[in-house]
Amino acid sequence: MSTTHENRPINGVDTATLYATIDAVRDQPELARFRFRTVHDWVAGTHSEGRFPGFYGAGQEHTHVHPTVVRADHPAVLVGNDNGPTPAELLLNALGACLTAGIGNIAAARGIELHDVRCRVEGDIDLQGLLGIDDTVRNGFESIRVVFCVDGDAEAERLASLVEQSVGRSAVFDVLTHGTPVAVEVEVDAR
Amino acid sequence: MSTTHENRPINGVDTATLYATIDAVRDQPELARFRFRTVHDWVAGTHSEGRFPGFYGAGQEHTHVHPTVVRADHPAVLVGNDNGPTPAELLLNALGACLTAGIGNIAAARGIELHDVRCRVEGDIDLQGLLGIDDTVRNGFESIRVVFCVDGDAEAERLASLVEQSVGRSAVFDVLTHGTPVAVEVEVDAR
Repeated sequence: MSTTHENRPINGVDTATLYATIDAVRDQPELARFRFRTVHDWVAGTHSEGRFPGFYGAGQEHTHVHPTVVRADHPAVLVGNDNGPTPAELLLNALGACLTAGIGNIAAARGIELHDVRCRVEGDIDLQGLLGIDDTVRNGFESIRVVFCVDGDAEAERLASLVEQSVGRSAVFDVLTHGTPVAVEVEVDAR
Repeated sequence: MSTTHENRPINGVDTATLYATIDAVRDQPELARFRFRTVHDWVAGTHSEGRFPGFYGAGQEHTHVHPTVVRADHPAVLVGNDNGPTPAELLLNALGACLTAGIGNIAAARGIELHDVRCRVEGDIDLQGLLGIDDTVRNGFESIRVVFCVDGDAEAERLASLVEQSVGRSAVFDVLTHGTPVAVEVEVDAR
């Protein structure tokens, strides 16, 4: 596995700036403290809209250049109106996006030009859990599988190792496989 | 906590069909086997597009009525081009969407009319982990917080219990707090 550091832009990654950023964080670890946020508005039934108001990181607040709205809903077969993907699919989407982003960066760092990267993610779930039919069945996915197709200018082993390294440094993969404490609070406006 | 089953449509939820669906699954547990899927195309750098090709469930394949594309990217401060939310934010988005959907269904089942439901989700992460600076720091979120504001026709305790029940039956909350096995495979097209 090559550890060469490429400094020319490759795969759309400004590798020189990437290394400078990592060095800056190494010198000032407080720059690494990030807080990401989303906000959600219920529309009706199981339909909601999620937005991305910005985040804190590298010592300051940031907003996104492009506003994004992600509609979520349950499908008709689960008595929703299918106004958007299910939350379960949105979870798989976060995983695929995270692993794909990592591959772009890691390939650039290793000087490997990518031609095409695709992946599919699938997760198996038994809804007897969340429907309250069988308490021995968990609410969430039993298992998730990711299959990557990577086409790039390197031998097969080096291309496969891009995926391996991306998995090893993925925020979403870590949370999905190891779990994270989640605190839920409620402010009610009762009538 | 009321266990009354309301059969009139409320909050945009067809509760009669919801109960009929749960009864059908109780009679034929194989209907509860679902497989959700996403597909991802790398664009450049950390930018990718996620799509939702459909899912298997209740004994057959389904496609979504509305095609959805979710663009993901890293922000400029992390050497991306900010073409969309970060994968970390997409993970929080899945959680907010799941808990909000549950509240819509559960309130309808309990005959509670909702006027407004909003939530914000935030997650703290130290990027020294995924940047490879400090191997004692995890890659993923250290902690996630969700704050719900619920406005509906019921006393405060009953409104708060909607959130509690939604957490107790959420697929995404379960995966994020307990983890799920994730298998990653690679098919390479080497040059």
